[in-house]
Amino acid sequence: MSKNQCNLLEEQLVGYLISFEGGEGAGKSTILQRLAEYLVQQGYEVVCTREPGGIEIAEQIRNIILDKKNIKMDAKTEALLYAAARRQHLVEKVIPAIEQGSIVLCDRYIDSSLTYQGYARGLGIEEIWAINQFAVNGYMPHLTLFLDVSPEVGLSRIRKDGDREVNRLDLESLDFHRKVRKGYYELLERFPERIKKIDADQDMDTVFHLVLNEVLNYLKKE
Amino acid sequence: MSKNQCNLLEEQLVGYLISFEGGEGAGKSTILQRLAEYLVQQGYEVVCTREPGGIEIAEQIRNIILDKKNIKMDAKTEALLYAAARRQHLVEKVIPAIEQGSIVLCDRYIDSSLTYQGYARGLGIEEIWAINQFAVNGYMPHLTLFLDVSPEVGLSRIRKDGDREVNRLDLESLDFHRKVRKGYYELLERFPERIKKIDADQDMDTVFHLVLNEVLNYLKKE
Repeated sequence: MSKNQCNLLEEQLVGYLISFEGGEGAGKSTILQRLAEYLVQQGYEVVCTREPGGIEIAEQIRNIILDKKNIKMDAKTEALLYAAARRQHLVEKVIPAIEQGSIVLCDRYIDSSLTYQGYARGLGIEEIWAINQFAVNGYMPHLTLFLDVSPEVGLSRIRKDGDREVNRLDLESLDFHRKVRKGYYELLERFPERIKKIDADQDMDTVFHLVLNEVLNYLKKE
Repeated sequence: MSKNQCNLLEEQLVGYLISFEGGEGAGKSTILQRLAEYLVQQGYEVVCTREPGGIEIAEQIRNIILDKKNIKMDAKTEALLYAAARRQHLVEKVIPAIEQGSIVLCDRYIDSSLTYQGYARGLGIEEIWAINQFAVNGYMPHLTLFLDVSPEVGLSRIRKDGDREVNRLDLESLDFHRKVRKGYYELLERFPERIKKIDADQDMDTVFHLVLNEVLNYLKKE
């Protein structure tokens, strides 16, 4: 359904969930912000968010995950905590916004858990899929933009960005980041309709226009 | 394997996980303590615990669940948090104790989630089973003692116990406590070998001797 149709048929008002995925330094937050500005100029209601996205309960959960004192945290505990934070963010923030007709742009969603924890940490994509299906209850993104950056390019971008705080995942080995990328390729094969791959080794202007093209194509079709 | 065999075969040293289940006021903690004292006198190594059982990460998770400010918490978020706390408690405390040959007596384990959240809150026993299997990885109790108390008796016991702090679950409606009991009956049918039902409307001495009988029978067989 297009935005115009939404305006005409208020009783069917419905928005979209568009998620952004990719390895570290892929440029997700930059592209997400540019896309948001573009869509707002076109008259769309846009909500930019990221998990845990400022939801109090999800922030509390994230604090446990990121607390450097919690070195004994088991990988499965971590996966369950991410799923719990995702659930709360979804029901408290994402779904209400979509029900009000907004386009929700979300920096990372279920695919991040599938590749980081399921594939790269070796817990199994199927296993992570199962607990996340409990969490999201079939609520998948309408469209997912996978910004595919080679680990070498992504990590060199992070090093150059003085403003960006280095996080725990940035410090993982190159081998880990290669696994994350391979995990995304697996997901591309599994969800070819939903996930669109964009070559994110290119300059950000080019990446933005490729992303915009995919988004406008999607909105036109609906 | 009996304790004596454990002593003879140190390379096969292995303990047991015995869980205690039941509605509010069933007498689980009283019986658990008496059983622990008895087993210690018999020369067993015993670890008494309850989820989250003093594990720092699990305590942090429990604090989120119990925080009265978190009134917006979704039932599925809560279920995932319980599973996360269970996982951490299991790998950090329960399994190491069992591997050292202890008998671990645990006040509540997976069956509590199955009946409270799966059955009584209506999330579905199968769904809660699935996320908990991810958490415990097949690590089920060797023996489960279900102290079956009628809600009326259980709640009147709690009211009489001035030392006991009333918790959130105590305040649920009688109808909720009846559902919890029905949920336990479902689990009894599903796991007849593992779960032993004890009539806990009786006085605590009688209940203790019935429990002791089940435990000694189990240890003899092993």
